[in-house]
Formats: sequence, C-alpha cells, structure tokens
Amino acid sequence: MKAIILNIGDEVLSGKVINTNSSYIAKEFLKIGITVEKTIVIDDDEDKLSAEIDVFKASPYDILVTTGGLGPTHDDLTKEVLVKNLGLEMSLNQEAKQLLDDYFGNQMANCNLKQAFFPKEAIILKNKNGTADGAIIEQNQKMYIILVGPPHEMNPMFQDALDFIKDKVDVQFLTKEFIVMGNGESFLEELLRPIYENYPSVYLAPYASVGKIRYQMTAKEDDQEAFNHAVHDFYNIMGDYIISTNNQEIEEVIVDLLKQKNYTISFAESCTGGLLASKIVNVSGASNVFNESFVTYSNEAKIKYLQVNEATISQYGVVSDEVVLEMVLGLFHQTQADICISVSGIAGPGGGTPQKPVGLVHFAIKIKDNIHVESKIFKGNRDIIRTRTALWVLYRLFTLLK
Amino acid sequence: MKAIILNIGDEVLSGKVINTNSSYIAKEFLKIGITVEKTIVIDDDEDKLSAEIDVFKASPYDILVTTGGLGPTHDDLTKEVLVKNLGLEMSLNQEAKQLLDDYFGNQMANCNLKQAFFPKEAIILKNKNGTADGAIIEQNQKMYIILVGPPHEMNPMFQDALDFIKDKVDVQFLTKEFIVMGNGESFLEELLRPIYENYPSVYLAPYASVGKIRYQMTAKEDDQEAFNHAVHDFYNIMGDYIISTNNQEIEEVIVDLLKQKNYTISFAESCTGGLLASKIVNVSGASNVFNESFVTYSNEAKIKYLQVNEATISQYGVVSDEVVLEMVLGLFHQTQADICISVSGIAGPGGGTPQKPVGLVHFAIKIKDNIHVESKIFKGNRDIIRTRTALWVLYRLFTLLK
Repeated sequence: MKAIILNIGDEVLSGKVINTNSSYIAKEFLKIGITVEKTIVIDDDEDKLSAEIDVFKASPYDILVTTGGLGPTHDDLTKEVLVKNLGLEMSLNQEAKQLLDDYFGNQMANCNLKQAFFPKEAIILKNKNGTADGAIIEQNQKMYIILVGPPHEMNPMFQDALDFIKDKVDVQFLTKEFIVMGNGESFLEELLRPIYENYPSVYLAPYASVGKIRYQMTAKEDDQEAFNHAVHDFYNIMGDYIISTNNQEIEEVIVDLLKQKNYTISFAESCTGGLLASKIVNVSGASNVFNESFVTYSNEAKIKYLQVNEATISQYGVVSDEVVLEMVLGLFHQTQADICISVSGIAGPGGGTPQKPVGLVHFAIKIKDNIHVESKIFKGNRDIIRTRTALWVLYRLFTLLK
Repeated sequence: MKAIILNIGDEVLSGKVINTNSSYIAKEFLKIGITVEKTIVIDDDEDKLSAEIDVFKASPYDILVTTGGLGPTHDDLTKEVLVKNLGLEMSLNQEAKQLLDDYFGNQMANCNLKQAFFPKEAIILKNKNGTADGAIIEQNQKMYIILVGPPHEMNPMFQDALDFIKDKVDVQFLTKEFIVMGNGESFLEELLRPIYENYPSVYLAPYASVGKIRYQMTAKEDDQEAFNHAVHDFYNIMGDYIISTNNQEIEEVIVDLLKQKNYTISFAESCTGGLLASKIVNVSGASNVFNESFVTYSNEAKIKYLQVNEATISQYGVVSDEVVLEMVLGLFHQTQADICISVSGIAGPGGGTPQKPVGLVHFAIKIKDNIHVESKIFKGNRDIIRTRTALWVLYRLFTLLK
C-alpha cells in the first residue's frame, strides 16, 4: 500500500516548527510495509487543501494522512474541507462530545464544540492528550486518516490508526529497535558497515537525536534468516552501546535496574541544575528508588549542604575531580543512598578558559563502596551541553551497573 | 513573491532524516518578504519530479527551490530532469569543473564529472562545503533555485541565492511576536476575535505548544496603520497573559525580573522533581539569582530537610495546601532566599483518588513576607503534567511579581 502525507499548518510551512510528523508517520508506516510516496505541506487554506484532496483522489495511492487543522479556531478547517470534498455530512458525534465534556467540564468554549462534529461514516481516533479527536474515513477504496498536529497528541493517535489498518496490509514486516548511546553516529556507522554490506535485504536506519541514536532494523517476512543474522551481528558489534531494545529511555532502564537491585539513588547537581533528578522522577514508579536530591549551584551551597572544603574549591576550581569527589561524599553523608552522583561543569556560554573550556564537566558516581570519577567535554549550546551531560552520566551509570 | 519548496530524496521521504531544509529556507525567505506556499517531498524519481515542475510552471508562484539530487550517483537526477523539462541544454561549465578539480586533485571519479555540467543560462551557486554546485535558472518570469541536500552545504549556498534575489523583492513585511501563557488556546481565540474581525489585512496566527502559545502578527508594509492598531488591541486584550514579545521563554523572563529586583529564588520540589530548578539553571546568568534547591520526593525527605510535620502529612495528605505551606517555610528557613517555591502533586499514572485525582498539584510561592498558595489540576501524561506544572508555577510567579 502507498500513502501520501499532507501536513497542514502555517507554523510548519513557514518554518517556525520543524516537520517531525511526516518523518514519524513514514517510519511507522514502513514497519508494516506501507511506503510514503509524497509529503506535502500547505497552510490552512481551503482551496489548496481541497485541490490536494482532488489530486489524491485521482492518484494511484491508497491512503491520505493529514496532520493539523483540527483545533478549535477559525483557521482549523481540515476536517470540514475534507468532509465537504468527499460529499459527506457532519453530525454531532456523541462519543467525541462526551470526551470534550470530560475534558472541559462545564467550561467549554463555544468554538470547541465543532471538534465533536464528524461524518457518521467516520471511525473516531480518540485524542489521549488533548481535545481534538482524529478520524478514519474510507471511500472508494481509499482511506483518509485525519490526525492532529502537535506530535505528543498525534503519535498515540496514529498508533491507534495503525492498529486499525494493520490487518488490511498483505506483506508483514519484521522489525527490531535498538536504543544506542555512548558514541557518535559516524563512529557507529563505521562499525555497522558489515551489516549494511552483508544483509542487503535488511533495512537498517539510524535516527540520531541529542545524546542517543535509535536504530531501526526492518525486513520482509520472507527474509527472516537474514534478519536474524543481522540482529545477532548487531548485538555482537554494539555490545554495551545498546541500552534498550524496547524503546526505553536511559532513565527508564536505570530505574528498572535500580528496582532489581533494590538500590536508592540521589544527586548533587551543579550545572545540570536538577535535570538528572527530574529525568528519574519522570519515570513512573521512581518513588521506589528515589527520595531526595540537591541542586547546589553556588559554591556556598556546595559547602553548606555537602561539606565541600572551601580550600578544595580555591585550589582545584569548582569544576574538578577533587570537588565532585567531595560533593559525592557529602551527598552520601546526607542521604545514605546506595548510589550517589555529583556533577559540576561549565555549561556556558560564559565562564570558559583555555584550561577549562565551556562544555567541560566533571562527575562522580558512588555505587556502594566504589567511586568512579570522570571528566568529559560536551559540545553545543547551554541547553544541549546540559542535556548531553545528564544523558552521559546516566549512560555511564548504566555501564557501571552492568 | 511566492515560492514552492521541493525536497528530493528517499532519506527525507522515508523519515530517516528529518526535513530541516524546508524550515530553514522558509524562515530565511520570510525575512525578505517571500512566502512559501507549499512544500513537497518526493524521492529521486524522474516522472514525479517532472510532474512537479509542470505543476509549478502552471502555478501563479514565482520561485521553485529544489534541494537534493545533485550528487554523483545515478540516483541523482534533479538538475538533469529540470534542464530537460525547461528545454535547455547541458554543457561543461568551466567554473564548476575547476571547483571539482580543486576539490579532488587528480583523484576524481568519472561519475563526479556530471556535477560540472550546467545549462549556459545558469548562474552557478558554488558549494563551499562539498562537490555539488547549485544553480539559479530564470525562464518565463519564473526562477528555479537548485540546491544540494546536506544542510551544512545547502545553507551557505542558499544565502548566496538570497543575495542574488534580494533586489528583486518589492514588498517588505511587518512582524511582531507575543508569547502568551495562563490560559488555553480556545479561550484566548474567543478574546482575540475582534482583532481577527477588525483588521483583515493583519495576519494573526497562534502556535500552541505545551503550556504556552506564540502569536505571530504579520502585515504588509502598506498596512502599517492597521498593524499598529492590531498590536495595540492585542496588548489591551491579552494584558498579563503576554509574558514576552522578544521570544523569551518564561524562565528567561523570570530570571530577568529577579535580576532587576535583586532577588534570589529557590525551590522545594516534589512531583516536578528538579524541573523548576533545571529551567532556571538553563538560563545563562542564573547564578545571579539562584544558589540552591531541594528535590524532596519522599515524605521523609520533606520532614528531614524542610521540617514538615509528620502530623500535617497524615492529617491533610502530602498533596495539600497545608503541606506545601510547611514546605515553603522550611525551605526559607534553609535558604533564606527572597522567593521560595514549593510544589507537591500527583503526576500519575497511579496514585490518584476521586478526591485527589492524577494531575492535582498544590504549590506555594513565598515572595518576601507574602505567601500565595494555589492548587490546580493539569491534564496529560506524567511528562506533560510535570511540564505544565512547572510552566504554570513560573507563570503565576510572573503575575505575582508584576
């Protein structure tokens, strides 16, 4: 089956927002063997939208996916234009209305009500994270999948759509995902060259983001043997770079490991400023392994709460092995956690020197009686340096725990 | 002037690579008043490509920008297909040939030579970071800008193209941005209806993301008066919902306000788990206003570090006005910060009850001698509830400080 993606919205067209939706949809489609033949971005314009629907109707393709234009404002007209173009009629959908009532209580603005109108032929795709539901409409052997624009609302909605169309796809695909950390994409690509060369029927694609890479391996069902070999080789080549194969983020992997070992964890954060604690707390069930944490940003805070020696700071500088070591010992003194982690670094843009450049981070990881101290230089702006630091520290904890 | 962007390449279409090129081009175009009317992504397919060129030729638009398909392989056929479609002829371009010779020395593969062929009508856009040059071709009052795919090669090439077309653009645009928080998109859209109705020549577009909305107002230079009125009305209607007009995030606005007032801030975080502290630390110069912060996730940590009464927790529950009040007083006792903020909530997915559902958050903001206590229910998954909480608390601080 072949699909067209139509992203609707001025914010994407004008470049304010980078279009990640089409990439997500194309990759997820590929897992069940549906290829995307064309992606189109337009703004919320009735004529343009209707023209694209006409082009699709005359095309040899099977599925049109739209994202965006389902909100409550006067700009949002995707559903209305499509329904009109297909010659269908809108009516109040009680299921969608109920979802809106549940969301807003009795505080619903008038303009929201239009989000409860659908043609009776539509299958509703519930929005789990917002108010605008999507829909699937079938007509003349073609399928129309209408989705919202914001990715965190669209992604789960599209998964529900995939569940619906999976059965209609003839060729099944084998897929396997790996989340990989600990080295850069170009380095890893060189390592993986044999897999690309030895298994031409297996499709291996890297998706890099800050601090991690997700590899997706896909093959047709007929190529099971090559697929199995490729998976086996991937494990051999990547080893400890693989942090999960079930799409778990590093913080989820860590919380699981800590639960297994019945360990608690706490942090003393300077440049990361609470980011490490926040990542752990973001995992449901964190309360089993996490009780407390300190953000000691100023020198005074490091001295007051963690008993760091003022002399150590003046002798070695606050970004040093010596200071993170004293921080981690002071943190343990306070919390008695099985794992204590301290971080101090220069997130920039100011504060760097030739000896200690922006991006330099020192950290200490104390697991029971063992202490690991490490320093590393991260590239990027302030936000990226802090994110890379947090991910790297969690990755190092992962390798130490294994 | 109006433009179409045509991105060519399987890696973008299949979602392997996220399409950042179209976003870059659209934003740069907008700066000189050129709007992008449509973006299209296709793979390297001669028929599809030629069909899109035909559509563009018949359209009312002025500029077609292509990216990708200029490499040395047999797949790369953008230039060849365009030149054929326009009825032009290729010849060896000495300038482009020289650039290749300089790049490769005498090690040039045969297939690279095709990168030196252009129609004699073309203006060459030199590639400063690779081997494939781009070009500008004009025909029948339409302009074709042919660019490479890799962003670090494309971006400087596109800047050269912009220099060339700048003089041809007549209309300049007026723009103004507002970041708005404190209420939902549909509620605010109702408030803004008069602006939409009274100033049809002014284009006002909302871009909603978790916890905030960015409004962009645009008008042609000729409509200066309507634009000024619309800006004035926007300020009147939105009032304290406007947190910035220079694209500053709430945490940047807060750090600026605190610097002006010479105030320090610290947090005692439970469900947000360090997210508030991390947002403040992410602002360059945070050290002027921020020294330390606590993540007190367990009841024991709230008792130990913040002197919360065990009896208060058992009587009112840990998510209650009474507990966040004791937390904020304990925090002040520890840090003496001018502003102390405590947060306790149920981020879910578990832990909710009918009386205290998932998403319920209580928080206290102490500014000098005044204490504001508030509770609110946020929607979404764990991550979104935590993010919304952090943004809402900072927004409330913003309104209290003003």
